Amino acid sequence: MRLVLFTALLLRCSAADITSFGAHAGDGSDTTPAVREALRTKPKKLVFPKGRYDFYPSYALEKYLFISNNDEGLKRIGFPIVGFEALEIDGQGSQFVFHGFMSPFLIERSKNVTFKNFSIDFERTFHSEAKVIAIGDDGVDLEISGQFPFKVDRGLLQFIGKSKEPYPFGSILEFDPRRRETAYQARDYYTGPYVEAESIGPRKVRIDVPKLTATVGNILVFGAANRNFPGFTISDSIDTSLTDISIYHCGGMGVIAQRSHNVTLDRVQVTPAPSSGRIVSITADATHFVNCTGRIVMTHCLFENQKDDATNIHGIYAQISRQLAPDEIEVRLVHPQQLGFDFIFPKERLELVHGPSMMTYGDAIVKSVTRVNKEFTRVTFLKPLPKELKTGDVVASAQPGPEVLIANCTFRGNRARGLLLGSRGKTIIEDNVFHIPGAAILFEGDARFWFEQAGVRDVTIRRNRFDNCNYGVWGKATIEVAAGIEPSQRAVSRYNRNITIEDNLFRIFDGGRIVMAYSVDGITIRKNRIERTTDYPPARPAAEPFDIKDSSQVAIR
Amino acid sequence: MRLVLFTALLLRCSAADITSFGAHAGDGSDTTPAVREALRTKPKKLVFPKGRYDFYPSYALEKYLFISNNDEGLKRIGFPIVGFEALEIDGQGSQFVFHGFMSPFLIERSKNVTFKNFSIDFERTFHSEAKVIAIGDDGVDLEISGQFPFKVDRGLLQFIGKSKEPYPFGSILEFDPRRRETAYQARDYYTGPYVEAESIGPRKVRIDVPKLTATVGNILVFGAANRNFPGFTISDSIDTSLTDISIYHCGGMGVIAQRSHNVTLDRVQVTPAPSSGRIVSITADATHFVNCTGRIVMTHCLFENQKDDATNIHGIYAQISRQLAPDEIEVRLVHPQQLGFDFIFPKERLELVHGPSMMTYGDAIVKSVTRVNKEFTRVTFLKPLPKELKTGDVVASAQPGPEVLIANCTFRGNRARGLLLGSRGKTIIEDNVFHIPGAAILFEGDARFWFEQAGVRDVTIRRNRFDNCNYGVWGKATIEVAAGIEPSQRAVSRYNRNITIEDNLFRIFDGGRIVMAYSVDGITIRKNRIERTTDYPPARPAAEPFDIKDSSQVAIR
Repeated sequence: MRLVLFTALLLRCSAADITSFGAHAGDGSDTTPAVREALRTKPKKLVFPKGRYDFYPSYALEKYLFISNNDEGLKRIGFPIVGFEALEIDGQGSQFVFHGFMSPFLIERSKNVTFKNFSIDFERTFHSEAKVIAIGDDGVDLEISGQFPFKVDRGLLQFIGKSKEPYPFGSILEFDPRRRETAYQARDYYTGPYVEAESIGPRKVRIDVPKLTATVGNILVFGAANRNFPGFTISDSIDTSLTDISIYHCGGMGVIAQRSHNVTLDRVQVTPAPSSGRIVSITADATHFVNCTGRIVMTHCLFENQKDDATNIHGIYAQISRQLAPDEIEVRLVHPQQLGFDFIFPKERLELVHGPSMMTYGDAIVKSVTRVNKEFTRVTFLKPLPKELKTGDVVASAQPGPEVLIANCTFRGNRARGLLLGSRGKTIIEDNVFHIPGAAILFEGDARFWFEQAGVRDVTIRRNRFDNCNYGVWGKATIEVAAGIEPSQRAVSRYNRNITIEDNLFRIFDGGRIVMAYSVDGITIRKNRIERTTDYPPARPAAEPFDIKDSSQVAIR
Repeated sequence: MRLVLFTALLLRCSAADITSFGAHAGDGSDTTPAVREALRTKPKKLVFPKGRYDFYPSYALEKYLFISNNDEGLKRIGFPIVGFEALEIDGQGSQFVFHGFMSPFLIERSKNVTFKNFSIDFERTFHSEAKVIAIGDDGVDLEISGQFPFKVDRGLLQFIGKSKEPYPFGSILEFDPRRRETAYQARDYYTGPYVEAESIGPRKVRIDVPKLTATVGNILVFGAANRNFPGFTISDSIDTSLTDISIYHCGGMGVIAQRSHNVTLDRVQVTPAPSSGRIVSITADATHFVNCTGRIVMTHCLFENQKDDATNIHGIYAQISRQLAPDEIEVRLVHPQQLGFDFIFPKERLELVHGPSMMTYGDAIVKSVTRVNKEFTRVTFLKPLPKELKTGDVVASAQPGPEVLIANCTFRGNRARGLLLGSRGKTIIEDNVFHIPGAAILFEGDARFWFEQAGVRDVTIRRNRFDNCNYGVWGKATIEVAAGIEPSQRAVSRYNRNITIEDNLFRIFDGGRIVMAYSVDGITIRKNRIERTTDYPPARPAAEPFDIKDSSQVAIR
């Protein structure tokens, strides 16, 4: 104990070596206490000599976290990086393997935190996979590898962990192991926790899910019911970067940054662990950015086989639930995974947005904020609010949003979409490769279900290769510019602005749409190449490749 | 708003009237914001003019609570009484009706808080009740009143609330509506969340639970899966009293006091709401006291038809998980409903207890405490610990425990036991009436499952009427003195001491035991009357009425 303290003091201003805090690589022992001890000394640099380090939740710090678009809760945290001024964690090529229910990394109220050169994985994944071995009238027969323990209890399938603790699921999605992607036109079956099953042999079950279709040889993925354990949670931090990081698995998003300034990912990959035999990497989006500012940079990244989008960059709309005075409103966070996401602070400027049209009709500067609970907040403003304000309208931060650069990345094989772009900052998407079952790029935003603030102002999409996108069900075109605007309002609303799509290659296997857009002010499509392929059967009826409606300043060449 | 503030200031030093904070009795409106506003003014007295007041969770304060023997979590709280020096809440005969998922009262770090003259109930109970209308080979047919909404979804029974939100259950217990008590010899069926069911008509279902037996006309009670919303949670407080309070329903214990000094209940009743037609009052113990000090007084109380014991007075054992140094140990809270129950503080004396024998072999004064998380804590002591200390032993507070007076109360019709007595302070149980399906009085304590510290030192049980107790399955005698001592250690261990049972009337319907005890030092049984009844069929083989084993200083007259 005294030796540890002494070593720690010595290392305070230089690089700390995790092994001097009691960590042992390669022997399966718990590295979590060593990390807690090391972080207590506030090192500038923490080094992990190359090896495998295991992390268990028993001695981990606990903290209640509200993580946007993931699930709130009291979490055990492997690396609780809270209130740091500068820290570099250098894995030197190590593998970090987490056990049980814990969150690998939390970066909170910190500056200048850098992660380098390691992988993260879990001993038992939060999702489970099963191979389809036969299909009959009574159900679908599955073979389940030993890495996904399960039991059949009173006629219901339950996935479990080492100590028989439940690993709850909520959906089934079919993957094609030859192409290593979601099966052609596969859709989600939302099962809830109940799937009827009977044991038909060692590690074999027959499941009975109404209307489930599947192909022998394919993999059914049982999706984790919750997003409790994201890989990297970055909250209220400045200058965070990840370089040469492999996220093989986590129980939520890979990197979720909220209210943070400048996030850089270079050579980050989200991919199933090599030789794990798994088809799915992580259980939700590879990355996700909420109410961030400064710059978001993703370069030389590979995001594949995760159970949701490659990225989503947006703000949060809070719904006006009541007007309490001419200068006072009560707002409500509506989406369950946004509860507790506090983004309204004194002196900040909020925009006021008409719910049905998504049109901004004013802004106002916050005077004071009273948090009622994770759901409701009262806000007073410096001046009376516009008369046209209505209950059901929404407010959001009026900050310009981050500049975005996504370049030289590959996105493929995951569920749903590629990039959801919603920042009002200058956004450049260049030299990437997309092979995505839904829309490769989606512009969204709505004030009625997801409550995600979006609406771009300056986007350039250039020199990308869109390779047979839209082979699944999550989208109507390779590039889709949409928004939750009521159809009657689309002719007047201009939610997204100034989108240029140029010098791209679109390889398409059917006659469906390449770009589909409405309510856009300024869209230029030029110098793109289109190649026909026969890689998939046609899925959609032939249509105009570029379908732009209810928009202004449209140029298609 | 300004008027409210003005009124509040006026009332600061006198009685505040809840209606001056915007509350309206009788119209179903939400009283929660008025209570928050009123409590903000720190009144000495808060009065509710007689009427019905409704409370909703929407605008309630939120707080993460660890509540011993209930379930931890982020709770919405109706009356968050935190850090008060003196407060009287006078309901003047009002009904307080709570809606949805919320905790009625929290008293935390407060002194001198008094509650008077009101009832609490919930619009939708956390448990559900169903009448048995037929029994066949395919299952048990039930009729379920409109106050317990439910649905059958994919062949499974689910209880729900007004907005179809789930009200999960985990067990079934049969009640006899004529006697208004648990059915003769009924036992718990632990179902988990799954009960197979089919709809057989409006508000009628057939359920299929393996081995379930029931009698037509009886009530099956589906027990709430969690104890999330106790009635009164008293934490780290001094001098709390409840007078003329009716707890008709809550989703956990009625009154749970932890680490608190002096708790007085006079004319408190736990009973199903009159004219509700319900058979069950609350979902867990009527009262429960953990690591309390000073005096616990319960007089003129009626605790009936709750889903667990009438009271349980005990401390908490933490298990020694590792010895880290001669003067340092790591301890673990083991029972899931004790996690986060922090009771070890610097300067306090802890007792060291041998796990298998429950024998105390030493004590030690705490020097410093480091909380690792809700499960683990590191403790250093002023002196090295005894050599005989072993991993798996337990520690507990060595404080003497509260004096206890329970007098002129009636306990009946609930599940399980009456009083669980575990305080080392002087304990008097007198002039009460017991009609309990299990043991009317139980002395317990163990270091392997419940981790409840007990072991009395001075108990007098006198002038009580024990009326046909033990008609159910939860006990071996009307008064049972036991403990989780390994059978091989019972001859040497003396866990409970100085128990006098005198001048009581025992009305018994079979030849089973009246008092059963082991490992006691000092038990005197005298001047009790025994009356035979024919109120129930005999359940147990004839035995010695007083069965005392492995004990010293035994006197039976």
